[in-house]
Amino acid sequence: MITIVVGTNRENSMSTKIAHYYKSILEQYYTGPIDMVDLVELPANFTGTALYDNNGDNDKFNDLRERVQSAEKLVFVVPEYNGSFPGVLKAFIDGLKYPQGVRDKKGALIGVSSGVQGGVMAMSHLTDIFNYLGLHVLAVKPKLAGIEKHWDGEKITNTLYNTLLHQQAEKLVKF
Amino acid sequence: MITIVVGTNRENSMSTKIAHYYKSILEQYYTGPIDMVDLVELPANFTGTALYDNNGDNDKFNDLRERVQSAEKLVFVVPEYNGSFPGVLKAFIDGLKYPQGVRDKKGALIGVSSGVQGGVMAMSHLTDIFNYLGLHVLAVKPKLAGIEKHWDGEKITNTLYNTLLHQQAEKLVKF
Amino acid sequence: MITIVVGTNRENSMSTKIAHYYKSILEQYYTGPIDMVDLVELPANFTGTALYDNNGDNDKFNDLRERVQSAEKLVFVVPEYNGSFPGVLKAFIDGLKYPQGVRDKKGALIGVSSGVQGGVMAMSHLTDIFNYLGLHVLAVKPKLAGIEKHWDGEKITNTLYNTLLHQQAEKLVKF
Amino acid sequence: MITIVVGTNRENSMSTKIAHYYKSILEQYYTGPIDMVDLVELPANFTGTALYDNNGDNDKFNDLRERVQSAEKLVFVVPEYNGSFPGVLKAFIDGLKYPQGVRDKKGALIGVSSGVQGGVMAMSHLTDIFNYLGLHVLAVKPKLAGIEKHWDGEKITNTLYNTLLHQQAEKLVKF
Repeated sequence: MITIVVGTNRENSMSTKIAHYYKSILEQYYTGPIDMVDLVELPANFTGTALYDNNGDNDKFNDLRERVQSAEKLVFVVPEYNGSFPGVLKAFIDGLKYPQGVRDKKGALIGVSSGVQGGVMAMSHLTDIFNYLGLHVLAVKPKLAGIEKHWDGEKITNTLYNTLLHQQAEKLVKF
Repeated sequence: MITIVVGTNRENSMSTKIAHYYKSILEQYYTGPIDMVDLVELPANFTGTALYDNNGDNDKFNDLRERVQSAEKLVFVVPEYNGSFPGVLKAFIDGLKYPQGVRDKKGALIGVSSGVQGGVMAMSHLTDIFNYLGLHVLAVKPKLAGIEKHWDGEKITNTLYNTLLHQQAEKLVKF
Repeated sequence: MITIVVGTNRENSMSTKIAHYYKSILEQYYTGPIDMVDLVELPANFTGTALYDNNGDNDKFNDLRERVQSAEKLVFVVPEYNGSFPGVLKAFIDGLKYPQGVRDKKGALIGVSSGVQGGVMAMSHLTDIFNYLGLHVLAVKPKLAGIEKHWDGEKITNTLYNTLLHQQAEKLVKF
Repeated sequence: MITIVVGTNRENSMSTKIAHYYKSILEQYYTGPIDMVDLVELPANFTGTALYDNNGDNDKFNDLRERVQSAEKLVFVVPEYNGSFPGVLKAFIDGLKYPQGVRDKKGALIGVSSGVQGGVMAMSHLTDIFNYLGLHVLAVKPKLAGIEKHWDGEKITNTLYNTLLHQQAEKLVKF
């Protein structure tokens, strides 16, 4: 089981679109089940009901985290917010079961931005966090900068981006 | 005006205690007003009502961010969660007014942890984010590792920690 | 005294050109003396003669580090090598006087790359190091990506890059 | 073939000792050949004779890099210098064959420090660099802080450190 996580709770996010597009790429290399967890499904009050002393108390949150925690491999599609990952993604991670959460799994990161960075710092910070939690991160991390210019409504049109996404998907299956 | 921000919404956090203790230190070097913004005051549903298209719509959130945005200098007391800062702190930052938010202000960071790291990665990641947003960060960033062992219920008992906190407070006033 | 450091020992580097160009910008905001230290002047054997137990033993190296250590403010022009700063720049830093080196100085960073990143990771890593050493780093850090396309042999032709460099120079003088 | 790299050119370094100790641990999980490349063997003038336009020109340097580039898996023992890795290690990396260097290999990092950090930032920065170069980094990265207190002249005496090193060695073999 590979689970693709959309790393923001913004509605109708570009990251959701990229995640579905990535699924279609991944299916070319992987015949097992692929699940999709979109953080837009997070309960609006999860930071008050699913963290710290409330860890494990919110059923809706538990369902989402279980789908992440039960995957063998994870893909995170991560938009760049304020020079890093969305705070909501980290708050979701802060609500995972500890310490088992994502330990000993393997993961791949994809950065998405309107601007020129492509989420490079977001992915660096996330790599630190995931490594801390015991998740091995694939070296190749495509940085999809200026995404609006390279998206035609259904697919990415930038050849380099597509090459990198295919390489990543193929490597993830063998990782 | 210097505003001290408690960087978590956890109730009765050690960071709240450290923040109040830090205020008593800062008052020895600074005679102006000192405000305290504790993220425990965040509305439980702020990730669903104060971010992205809802930016500016949540009055309670707006009040908190205004108190941060109107300060000249900021101090962030940042507990280490999962090898970085709390996701809730970044989600709060994601809800600041853009791009004015914390631009051209000056800030100081204090890391707090039960474990041995003292929030060193949390502060590195935050420095990246704040620099991206135009906030200048003071070089000295005390790492208060193993905090429970060095807190007697009212004050920090570790001499090195106190020396670093005093140095930081003094430098922040001149920064 | 503001000293501009060219952060590589590569001969005829683009960073040397950018550093001289930056000097001409800085002179529009600063009337004091501006020195230039180009790491191309490093002795070829400095890693064997100026570090660790040999710290302080190499006169040519000592001269270079003295010019850095005696400045009030520092500007580092940093090319991106392998996703970070040049190893030679860090080896130079490893040879500074400890702990006085760059402590309590103020600094500004400029990233330069042929590729699309503009040295963003190089500057993040360097900020960590300089903060550790007590150097305060200005928040604004221009990322001069694709530099060859934006350099006409004498000056930078990209309007955004020039705006950022002017803003940075003006802020550094007041920092 | 697994190659252990000692990440400094300092003579008689603690990292050399740790590397040999690690070899004895790794041999309990791995029956293949283990090579050791100690950067103390770097030619004193390599920054002037083996980088940039001189890449490939220094036979002694070429021999060292070949031993790194021909390994399937790599272990880096990295002392903390000035809050990050030794500049000399990055300068060595800057002299690798590009882009094949360490691409698609798998690696493990061990941080070593006299102080309290255990090289946590050194390993974060290195992970960024290695991922950029296509080397997959194992999540578990032991931080051997206060190393002198935990070394009896022949072996590490700290139980937690030994547990982590064994776990890492076992995981690396399967990685």
